[in-house]
Amino acid sequence: MQKDTPLHRFPVLWGEIADLRACEENLHWDQETMMPPGGQLARAELLATVAGLRHRALTSEELADTIAANLGSDRIDEVERHQLLEAQHERERATQVPERLVQALAIAGSEGIARWREARDQSDFSIFAPALKRIVELLREEAQTRTVGDHLYDGLLEEYEPRARTADLLPLFDTLGRELSRIVAQVVDSGRVVDESVARGEFPESAQLEFGKWVASTIGFDFDRGRIDASAHPFCSGLAPGDVRITWRSDPEDFRPGLFGILHEAGHGIYEQGLPPEWQRTPLGKARSMGVHESQSRLWENHVGRHAGFWRYVLPRFREAFPAWRPATVEELWPALHRIAPSLIRVEADEVTYNLHVLARFRLELAMVSDDLQVDDLPTAWNDTYNELLGVCPQNDVEGVLQDIHWASGLFGYFPTYTLGSLLSAQLFAAAEADLGDLENSFAGGDFSGLKQWLACHIHQHGSRYTAAELIESATQEPLSSAAFLAYVGTKAERLYGVA
Amino acid sequence: MQKDTPLHRFPVLWGEIADLRACEENLHWDQETMMPPGGQLARAELLATVAGLRHRALTSEELADTIAANLGSDRIDEVERHQLLEAQHERERATQVPERLVQALAIAGSEGIARWREARDQSDFSIFAPALKRIVELLREEAQTRTVGDHLYDGLLEEYEPRARTADLLPLFDTLGRELSRIVAQVVDSGRVVDESVARGEFPESAQLEFGKWVASTIGFDFDRGRIDASAHPFCSGLAPGDVRITWRSDPEDFRPGLFGILHEAGHGIYEQGLPPEWQRTPLGKARSMGVHESQSRLWENHVGRHAGFWRYVLPRFREAFPAWRPATVEELWPALHRIAPSLIRVEADEVTYNLHVLARFRLELAMVSDDLQVDDLPTAWNDTYNELLGVCPQNDVEGVLQDIHWASGLFGYFPTYTLGSLLSAQLFAAAEADLGDLENSFAGGDFSGLKQWLACHIHQHGSRYTAAELIESATQEPLSSAAFLAYVGTKAERLYGVA
Repeated sequence: MQKDTPLHRFPVLWGEIADLRACEENLHWDQETMMPPGGQLARAELLATVAGLRHRALTSEELADTIAANLGSDRIDEVERHQLLEAQHERERATQVPERLVQALAIAGSEGIARWREARDQSDFSIFAPALKRIVELLREEAQTRTVGDHLYDGLLEEYEPRARTADLLPLFDTLGRELSRIVAQVVDSGRVVDESVARGEFPESAQLEFGKWVASTIGFDFDRGRIDASAHPFCSGLAPGDVRITWRSDPEDFRPGLFGILHEAGHGIYEQGLPPEWQRTPLGKARSMGVHESQSRLWENHVGRHAGFWRYVLPRFREAFPAWRPATVEELWPALHRIAPSLIRVEADEVTYNLHVLARFRLELAMVSDDLQVDDLPTAWNDTYNELLGVCPQNDVEGVLQDIHWASGLFGYFPTYTLGSLLSAQLFAAAEADLGDLENSFAGGDFSGLKQWLACHIHQHGSRYTAAELIESATQEPLSSAAFLAYVGTKAERLYGVA
Repeated sequence: MQKDTPLHRFPVLWGEIADLRACEENLHWDQETMMPPGGQLARAELLATVAGLRHRALTSEELADTIAANLGSDRIDEVERHQLLEAQHERERATQVPERLVQALAIAGSEGIARWREARDQSDFSIFAPALKRIVELLREEAQTRTVGDHLYDGLLEEYEPRARTADLLPLFDTLGRELSRIVAQVVDSGRVVDESVARGEFPESAQLEFGKWVASTIGFDFDRGRIDASAHPFCSGLAPGDVRITWRSDPEDFRPGLFGILHEAGHGIYEQGLPPEWQRTPLGKARSMGVHESQSRLWENHVGRHAGFWRYVLPRFREAFPAWRPATVEELWPALHRIAPSLIRVEADEVTYNLHVLARFRLELAMVSDDLQVDDLPTAWNDTYNELLGVCPQNDVEGVLQDIHWASGLFGYFPTYTLGSLLSAQLFAAAEADLGDLENSFAGGDFSGLKQWLACHIHQHGSRYTAAELIESATQEPLSSAAFLAYVGTKAERLYGVA
C-alpha cells in the first residue's frame, strides 16, 4: 500500500534523476581524464542519451503529479516542502524550453565550437561570427520562453545562479568595476613592478603533484572520498559526497598555476564533500549555485593559499619538494602571489584584474542578449571595453574576443558567477575571521579545520535548502556587496604599490 | 512521417539500451580502477539504477511492438532480421524472470559475497553454506522459468553461452577430463619437475607495465582506442570499439602473471576493438559469447604468448626491460612457460590443469542445480572431485571449495565458458595455421598481423550475427571438439615430460 503513495514515489523518481546526473558527471570526468582518443564519437552519443533520459524523467507527467500531490498534502514537513519546491523549480526550468529549441541549441553549440576553433587558428573573428549570431538568436528565444525576472538576461542567468537578477547585478558590478579600474590605473601609474622571479624555476610535475596533494589534504580535502588527475582544463566533479574528483594542470617553470589550481579545485571539492549525505539523491543534496561554488574555490585559493600564515606553514615542505628552488622567505614570496597587473588574457590574470575581465564579458553578453550590440560589432566593442576597464587593447582577435570557449558553446549568463564568487569569498572570509578571530596563527600552525568547519556550518551542510541570498545573509549578517572584496584588494594594493 | 515507422524507431530504442549498457561498463570499470573508497555506497545505488533503467527499456511494450512490427514487415533485409531476432532473444531473456526473483537474486548475491568473505577469513565453509543454499534455491527457480533446452542447467548457461546445451557439453567435457587426467597423472608419474627459476627474479612493476604495453601494441591492441590500468582482478571492458579498457596486476618476483595477464586481456581487447563499428549500439554489435571471448584471450595468451617464435622476437626487449634478470635463451625459458603440475588453486594453475579445475566446478554446479548434490555435502564432493580429476586434495576449505567468488555472487553456468574458450582457442589457432602456414617465422619477425586479420575476418567482424556454433564451423570447418586442444597439450607433455 505504502509503496503507491506520492510520498514514497517522489524519492524513487528523483533518485533516478540524480543518478542519471551522476552518470553524466562520471562520463564527463572520464572523457576529460581517462578516455582514449578513439572513444570520442561513442562518448558524444552516450552523453546525449543520458542527458535525454534525464530530461525525460524530469519532465514526466508522473513526476509533476507526484510533486503536486505531495505539496497538497498536510503530512509533509518543512524540509520535505523545500525538497518538493526545489524539484518543482528544476522541473519547470526543464519544461519551459521546447525540445526543438534544446536540440537547436545543442547543434548551434557544437557548430559554434568548431567555428571558434577555426577562427582562433586564423585569428579571424569573422569566421566565428555567423555561428555566434545563430547562438545569440537562439538564446534570445530561450530567454523569452523563461518566465523569471524583468530582464531577458535573467532567464539565462537563472541556469547558473538561481534567483540572481540583472537589476541587482548592474549596480553591484558598476561599483566594483569603477573601483577596480581606479585601483588598477593607480597601480600602473605607481610605476612599481613586482619581481616574480621567485615564483619561477624548475618545478617537476610529479613533485608539484605530490606537494599539491599534501596541501589539498592539509586544508581538508579528503582523498579517501576523492582523487586528483591531470586534465587540459582543471575542474571538479562531484559524483557523491563520498566521491569527488578534482583535476589540475601545471607549468613546469612556475609553481603558481599548478598550486593555486589545486587549491581552487580542492575548495570546490571540499564543498562537494561537505554536502549533506542524508540528502544525497534528493533535490536539496546539491551545491546551491555556481556563484556560491566559486566562493568556496576562491576562498581557499586566494584568501588561504595566498595568506602569509599559510605560507609560514607550508614553506619548509615546499623547499623539500623543490630542492632546485632558490630559497626565499614568506616576505620575499608574498609580492609574487599578490602582484596586480592589467593583461589581455582572463585565465592568466591576477585575482584583482580577473574580475575586470569578467565584467567586460558580462557587459558585452548582456548587450548582445538585449539586442543592443550586434555580433558583427563585438570585436570593436570588446576592445573598447578592455581599454575602458583595464587600459589595455588586444592586437588581434585571439588575444581579444576569441580567447574564451564559453560563448561558442552557448554559455551566456555564466561569467557573472565568477565575480559573484570572488565577492562572496572575501565576504565569507571576513565573516569567518569576525567569528573565529584572526586566522593567521591557526594557518601558520597548519590548522585549517576551524575555517573549514565554519564553512561547513554556514554553507556546505545546507546543500540547496536555502537561496544564495539567504545563505549569504545568514553566514555574514549582510547581503552580498563588493565591500569586503574591495577592502581586501585595497590592502594589498596599498602594501605593494602604495595605492591609497 | 518516416520518424514514426517501427523501422526508424527500433535503432533509437536499442541505442538507448546499448548506451545504458555502456554506462554500466564505464561505472564498473571506474569502480575497479579509479573510484575512491568513499564512493562505494553511492556507486552501488548508481549501478542498480542504471541496470533498472536498462531492464525497463528492454522489457518495454514499445520495444516488443517495434520488434514484432519490423519482423512482420517485408521491407527488412537479412541483417535487419538478424538484428531483430537478437533483440527479441535478449528481450525474452529479460522478461522470463520475474522482477521479484531478479531482486531476490541480487540480494542473495550480496549476502553470499559477504558470508563467503567471512567463511574464507575463518576457513569454515559452514559459515557460507546457508547463503549458498539460498542462492542455489533461487537459481533453480530461475532456471525453471527459463524455457531453453532440456536440462535445468541450460537456462543458466544460456546467459553466458547462448545456445550451448548441457547435453552437448557433457560428452565434450567427459572426453576432455578423461584425457587431461590421464596426461596429468603421467606427468606426475614421470617424476620430472620443470625448473622455474628462470621466470623468477626482480621485475619492477613499472618495467613490467611498459614491457606489457609494448607487447600488447605489438600483437595489435590499439592504445589510441584503449588503455590499461591496474586492478585487483584483471578484466577487459569494452565501451565501444574505439574505447576498450584492459586491466592487469603483477607479481614483482615472477614476470608470468603480469605478462600473460596482459596478453590475455589484450586478446579480449582486440576482439572488442574489432567489433563492427557500423553495428555499434545495435544488437549485433557485441561479442558473441563468453566462450568465444575467452577463445580470443587464450589464443593470444597461450598460443601466441607461450610460442617460441613470439619469444624469439620479444626476448631482446625483455632483457632490456629487466636488466637484473639472469639472461636465458628461448629454449631455457620455454619449459617454465609450459610446465604442467597439478595444484589446488585455479587462478594459479597452468593452462593444462586449469581446465580440470573448471571441469570440477562444472560437475559440481551441475549436480547442485539438478538437486543431485546438497550444499552441505559440497566440501566433501569438492575434495573427492579434485582427487579424482587432479590427484590432489585440499587441506582446508580456503584452498578448496571457498577459493572462487563466482558461486557466492550467483554465477552458475559461467565456469564452462572458460574451458569452451580453451578448446576453441586451440581449434582456431590450428585452423589459422592451416590457412596461413606455420606462424613461427612471422612471430619471430614480430609480425602478428596475419593472425589478427584472420581472427578479424572469421570472428571479430561478425559481432553477434552468427551463433557460436556457426562461427566455429565457418572458421575451422568443423564443430567444436577437444581434439586440437588435446593435440596441443599432448605435444608439450611429450616434449617436457616424455609422456606419450
